[in-house]
Amino acid sequence: MATEGLDRREHDVAKEEERILILNEIWRPWPKTRRRVQGCLECVKRQLFRVGEDWYFLFALGVIMAMVSFVMDFTINTLLNAHRWLYQELGDYLVLKYLSWTMYPIALVAFSTGYAQSITPHSGGSGIPELKTILTGVMLEDYLAIKNFGAKVVGMTCTLAAGSTIFLGKVGPFVHISSIMAAYLGKIRTSVIGEYENKSKQNEMLVAGAAVGVSTVFGAPISGVLFSIEVVSSHFAVRDYWRGFFSATCGAFMFRLLAVFNNDQETIMAPFKTNFKIDFPFDLPEIFFFMILGVICGIISCAYLFCQRWLLGYIRRNKLTAWLMATDKPVYSALVALLLSSITFPPSLGQFMASRLTMKEYLSCFFDNQTWGVLSQNASLARPLQVDPENLWMEWWDPNITIYGSLVIFIVMKFWMLILATTLPMPAGYFMPIFVYGAGIGRLTGEVVAFLFPHGIKLDGAANPIIPGGYALAGAAAFSGSVTHTISTALLVFEVTGQIAHILPVILAVLIANAIAQKFQPSFYDGTIIVKKLPYLPRIRSRHIDSYRVTTDQFMNTDFAVLSKGATFEEILQVVTSTDDLEYPIVESAAPESLLLVGTVPRSELVEFLQTHEDAKLSSQEAGEKDKALCSGTLGENCTINPITFQLSPCTSLHQTHHLFELLNLQRVFVTSLGRVIGAVSRSEVKKAIEDLANPKTAK
Amino acid sequence: MATEGLDRREHDVAKEEERILILNEIWRPWPKTRRRVQGCLECVKRQLFRVGEDWYFLFALGVIMAMVSFVMDFTINTLLNAHRWLYQELGDYLVLKYLSWTMYPIALVAFSTGYAQSITPHSGGSGIPELKTILTGVMLEDYLAIKNFGAKVVGMTCTLAAGSTIFLGKVGPFVHISSIMAAYLGKIRTSVIGEYENKSKQNEMLVAGAAVGVSTVFGAPISGVLFSIEVVSSHFAVRDYWRGFFSATCGAFMFRLLAVFNNDQETIMAPFKTNFKIDFPFDLPEIFFFMILGVICGIISCAYLFCQRWLLGYIRRNKLTAWLMATDKPVYSALVALLLSSITFPPSLGQFMASRLTMKEYLSCFFDNQTWGVLSQNASLARPLQVDPENLWMEWWDPNITIYGSLVIFIVMKFWMLILATTLPMPAGYFMPIFVYGAGIGRLTGEVVAFLFPHGIKLDGAANPIIPGGYALAGAAAFSGSVTHTISTALLVFEVTGQIAHILPVILAVLIANAIAQKFQPSFYDGTIIVKKLPYLPRIRSRHIDSYRVTTDQFMNTDFAVLSKGATFEEILQVVTSTDDLEYPIVESAAPESLLLVGTVPRSELVEFLQTHEDAKLSSQEAGEKDKALCSGTLGENCTINPITFQLSPCTSLHQTHHLFELLNLQRVFVTSLGRVIGAVSRSEVKKAIEDLANPKTAK
Repeated sequence: MATEGLDRREHDVAKEEERILILNEIWRPWPKTRRRVQGCLECVKRQLFRVGEDWYFLFALGVIMAMVSFVMDFTINTLLNAHRWLYQELGDYLVLKYLSWTMYPIALVAFSTGYAQSITPHSGGSGIPELKTILTGVMLEDYLAIKNFGAKVVGMTCTLAAGSTIFLGKVGPFVHISSIMAAYLGKIRTSVIGEYENKSKQNEMLVAGAAVGVSTVFGAPISGVLFSIEVVSSHFAVRDYWRGFFSATCGAFMFRLLAVFNNDQETIMAPFKTNFKIDFPFDLPEIFFFMILGVICGIISCAYLFCQRWLLGYIRRNKLTAWLMATDKPVYSALVALLLSSITFPPSLGQFMASRLTMKEYLSCFFDNQTWGVLSQNASLARPLQVDPENLWMEWWDPNITIYGSLVIFIVMKFWMLILATTLPMPAGYFMPIFVYGAGIGRLTGEVVAFLFPHGIKLDGAANPIIPGGYALAGAAAFSGSVTHTISTALLVFEVTGQIAHILPVILAVLIANAIAQKFQPSFYDGTIIVKKLPYLPRIRSRHIDSYRVTTDQFMNTDFAVLSKGATFEEILQVVTSTDDLEYPIVESAAPESLLLVGTVPRSELVEFLQTHEDAKLSSQEAGEKDKALCSGTLGENCTINPITFQLSPCTSLHQTHHLFELLNLQRVFVTSLGRVIGAVSRSEVKKAIEDLANPKTAK
Repeated sequence: MATEGLDRREHDVAKEEERILILNEIWRPWPKTRRRVQGCLECVKRQLFRVGEDWYFLFALGVIMAMVSFVMDFTINTLLNAHRWLYQELGDYLVLKYLSWTMYPIALVAFSTGYAQSITPHSGGSGIPELKTILTGVMLEDYLAIKNFGAKVVGMTCTLAAGSTIFLGKVGPFVHISSIMAAYLGKIRTSVIGEYENKSKQNEMLVAGAAVGVSTVFGAPISGVLFSIEVVSSHFAVRDYWRGFFSATCGAFMFRLLAVFNNDQETIMAPFKTNFKIDFPFDLPEIFFFMILGVICGIISCAYLFCQRWLLGYIRRNKLTAWLMATDKPVYSALVALLLSSITFPPSLGQFMASRLTMKEYLSCFFDNQTWGVLSQNASLARPLQVDPENLWMEWWDPNITIYGSLVIFIVMKFWMLILATTLPMPAGYFMPIFVYGAGIGRLTGEVVAFLFPHGIKLDGAANPIIPGGYALAGAAAFSGSVTHTISTALLVFEVTGQIAHILPVILAVLIANAIAQKFQPSFYDGTIIVKKLPYLPRIRSRHIDSYRVTTDQFMNTDFAVLSKGATFEEILQVVTSTDDLEYPIVESAAPESLLLVGTVPRSELVEFLQTHEDAKLSSQEAGEKDKALCSGTLGENCTINPITFQLSPCTSLHQTHHLFELLNLQRVFVTSLGRVIGAVSRSEVKKAIEDLANPKTAK
C-alpha cells in the first residue's frame, strides 16, 4: 500500500512537471520559429566546432596572452610611475635620491632572480633559444610546464619594473610563456577530443604561441608572425603561418582594444605613432646614408655578439662569478644592478644619457619627427626638473656636450651595460634593448646627416629637410635585425610606428646589416644555444660545396647497439645497461650477413620488458618452480616494434642528410644497404661532418 | 741566315716590349700602394664571389625584372594614352568613336592571342598554377624555356594596353616570366661553376623568381615575397625567404628608382599614395563594418570562384566555343573583346561604370581620401569632357543614379565581365582585376557607411568623419585575398598606398573573407589546376581525423612493375614496353619471397640499355658471330642503380604520407616491409585516399 501510494505520488509529480513544461512551452511565442532558429544555431555550432578544427583554441590563446600582456604592462607602468614619483618627491637630498634610485631596481632584480630561480631553474634568460631547440624535436624536460608560467610572469614584471636602468625587454620571455600557454591549451584540447594527433600538431601550437608572444608585446600581428618564424624555425608550413596569423591578430587586436578601453588611446592606433612628413619622406641621395647606417649597424652588431658570447663564457670561467652564479644568483643580480644604477644615476653620468626616460620614452623620442639639432639652437634652454612628456628630447640636451655628445655617450656606455645586463640570471628579453639601442645609433646618424645638410641634400630645385626620425627607424630595424639574424624587423618598425613611408631605405639597411652579421657571427639566439650547449645543427654555408660530395658512409657511426628480433632477456639486459640510446634498431637476426632492419624499439619499452621479466623470474624462483619458459620470451614476442619510415642510403650526400634532418626534425636515422642496417646518423654526427667541412684541417 | 735574322728581330721586339712595360710600371705612381690596393680588391672579390654564393644572380634577377617591368609599363602607358587621344580627337562622330573604342582592344587582344599562341601553346593564362605544379616536383616540359619569355612579354604588353575595357592584370604572367628568367640565370650559373647542385637549388631560384615577379609589379618587396610564398608553395625554408627578400628588394628598389629617373615621381614613394587623415584613421565601432565587409567579400569571392570554374568548363563543353578554342583562338578573343568593349563604350552603359578610367586610375580614385557622397552634394556638377586627373571621382557621378548607383552597376557588371575575361587564351594576370574589383566593393561599403553616419559614429565627444578610402583598402585586400587564399594582400595594400594606419581592421576583414572562401571553394589557382587537370595534391582538412587512422597498406598500389637485379634483355624489354613508369624498383631477386629492394633505375636508362644491346645484337647477328655473351648482360651489370633514401612502411598513416609528399616534393615512393617491397604510393594514390576521406560513401 505504502509503495503504491509512493508510486502514485511520484507519478503525479512527474505529470505535474510535464504539464508545467508544456504550459511553459505554449506560453513562449512562436514555437516553430524558435525551433527553426535553434536548429540553425545547432548547425552553425556543428560547422564551427567540428572535431579537428582548433580555431577557438588559437583565438583563446591570442586573447589570453593579450590580457596577460596588458595587465603586465599596466603593473609595470604603475611601478615605474611610483619609482619616478618617489625619486622626485625626495627633493634635494642627494643621498636619499641616490638610495631611491639604486635600491628600487636592486630590490626588484634580486627578487626577480630569487623568485624565478626558486620555482624553476629554467626561468632565466630569454627562452627563445630553448624554444628553438624544442621545435627541432629535442624534448627539454619541464621546459613547457605550466608552473614556469607564473615564475616567468612575476619575474618578468619585476625585471621590467626596474626600468631603463637595467634596460631589458619583454619579447623573449613573453614568447616563452606564450608557448607554455599554447602547450597547455594543446593538452586540454587533446584531453577533450582524444589523442589522435602526433607531435607535429604540438609543434603547430608552439609556433602559433611564439607568434602570439611577439605580436601581443608590440601589438603588431604581421611582423610578429614573421619574426617568430625567422627566429624559431628553419622551415615552416604555409598552414602554420595562417594559424599564427589568426592567433596573432586576435592577440594584437585584443591588446590594442584594452589600451583603448583603458583610455590610453582614443582609438586603435600604433603604439609609437610618429608624425613624419609622409609627402616627402626622404630624398634619393639619402639612400646612400641609409646604406652606411646599415653597415655601421652590421659592424656594431658583430662586436656586440662577439662580446656578449665572450662575457657569458667569462662569467662561467671566472672563479668569483662562477661561485656567485652557482650559490647566490640574487646577490650577483643585485651587484650588477648596483653597478648599472650607479652609472645611470641622473646627477652623475646618467645626465649625459637621458637616464630618466623609460624604455618606451626612449623609443618615442628617438622616433620623434623633429630635428633635435635644430631645436637645440634655441637659446633659452634649461633642462626641466621633471621629464616633460611633450619635450622628451630635452633630456638629451646638455650645454657642454650638445645632443651629439649625449648620443655618443649613450651608445658607448649602453654597449657594455647591455652586454652585462644579458648575463643576469632572471627572466628578461633582449630584443627590446637592442631595438632601442639601434634606434639610438640611427638617431645619431640622422642628426649628423641633418647637421651636415641643414637644408636637405638635393642640389637643384626645392630641397626638403632631412628627418632624423627616419634614420632612427632604420637603425632600430637594422641593428635588432642583424643581432637576431632576422629581416622582419623592417616590417616591425612600421607596424609599431603606424606609417610605412621609409620602407625601401629601411629594408636596404636591414639587408646590409644582416649580410655583415650573418657572415661573421651566429645570431644572438644561436650564440646562446652554443654557450648553453643545447643540441644544435649548424647550417651549411652555400660556399661549402663539398657538402654535396661527402656521403653518409663517410661520417656515419658504425659502432651502435643492435638487437635481434629473437634477443633474450640476457642479451637485452646487456645492451640496455651498456648503452644509453633512446631507441634501438631491431634486426631480423644478429648474424653479421643478415642485419635486416625490422624496426625500432624505444628504450622505455625495453626497460619495462626487463622489469616485468625480472619480476616473473623472481616470483617463479620464489615459488620454486623452475619454469624457465615463462620468463624466456624473446623481444619480438613481447615488445611492439615501431616501423621505420625513414632510412638513409650510404650514398646520400651530407647536404641532403642535413636538409632531411632540418625538414623532418629527425634525431637519429639508420643507414641501410640492401635492407641491412650498416650505420646510424644522429645530429651530433651531422654536426661534426659540417664542422669538418668548415675546418678541413681538423678533419680526420 | 734568314731564320737567324728573324730570330734576332723577334728577340729585339720582345725586349722592346718588355722595356716599355717596365717603363710604364715605373711611371705609374706608388707601385706598392697600388699593389696593396689590388690585393685588397682581389681579397674582397674572393670574399664576395665565392663558389656557391649566388647573391649576384639574385641581384641580377631583381634588376633585370625591374627593368622589364618598367619598360613594359612605359610602353603600355604610351599605348593607352594614344588610344585616349584618338578617342578624344574624333569629336562628335559617334560611329567613329565607337569604332575607335572597340577596334583598338580587339586588335590588341587578337594579336596578343595569336602571337603568344604561335610561339608557345603554354603562354595563355596566368602561369602561376603551372609554376605551383612545377614546384611540387612535376616537370612540365618547356614551360620554363626562354622562348616563352618573349612571347609572354609581348603578349602581355598588348593585353594590358587594351586597358580597363578588358580589365586584366600583370601579376601572374610576370611571375611566370620572372621564373623563366630565374631558371635561365640558374642554367648560366650551373654552366659557369659546374653542376654540383641538385634540384632543390633550382627550386630555390624559382621561388626567388616568383617573389621578384610580384614585387616588381607593385614595387612592394615584403608583401611580394609573402604573396609568392603563399601562392606557390605549401612549405618553405626561411633561407629561401631571405633570398627572395634580397632579390625582391633589389627589384622593387630598381623599379621605383626608374620611376624617379623618368620624372614620374619626385622621390621614391608608394605607387598609389594616399592622403588619409592618419591621426584618427577609424573609430572603434567601425571595426564592425570592416568585419561585415569581410563577410561580403568572402561570399562574393565564393560566387566568383564557382562561376569562374563553371564558365571555364562550359567553354570546353560547348561545341561552338570548344571549336573556336581549338581552331581560331584569336577569333574567340576578338569576339569577347568586341562584347566587352561594346558594353564599356562610354556613351552607352560605360558612362555608369566610369569606363574611361585606366586600371591605375580606378585604384587611385577608389583609394581617394575624400568622401564622394559629400563631394557630390555640390550643386554645379557636370561631368568633364575628358578625364580630369585631379577629380577622378567625377567619372562616377551621374545625376540620375548618383555615385551609389554607379558603384552598384560597376560591381554587378564587372562580376561577369571579369569572369568572361579570364577565359581569354592569352597571357594575362587575374590578380589586379580582383584587387580593383575588391576596392570597388570596399568603396561602396565605405560610402554607404559614410552616408548612414555623416558625422562619424561616436556618440559621446567629438566624432570623426568616416574615411571610405579605408574601406576600399580593406575591400581590395579581403577580396583579392579570399579569391587567391592569401593573407599577405593585407600587407600589400599598405605597401602600395604608403601608409599603414588601418592595419588591424584590414587584417580582420582579410581573415574573415579567407575563412569563408577557404571553407567553401578552392583558391583561384587551385581551381585552375583542377580545371586544367594538372597534377594536384588536395590538402587534408583538419576535421578529417580519419587521415591519422588510414594507413599506407590500405591505399597503396600493389600492382606495379618490378625488375630484378639479374633481369635479362627480354625481361626488361617486356616490362618497359608494357608499362610507362618513370622509374622502376630493382629487387635482389624476383622470387616472391625475397623482393628485397635494392634501388631504382630511371626509365631513360633502361631504354638506353635496350638500345645499345639491340645494336650489339644486330651487329653481332650481321657479323654472323653468334656470341650471345656480348648481348646477354643483366640489368645489375649494365645500369647504375640509384640508391633509395626514402621508403614508407605499411603502417605509415595517410596524414604522415601526405605531409612527406608535400614536404619533400615526392612523386612516387615504395612501401617496404622487412626490406621487401610490397607496394608503391604515388601522388594519385594519395589524392584518391584523401578524396575518399571527404566522401566516405564513394570509397570502396
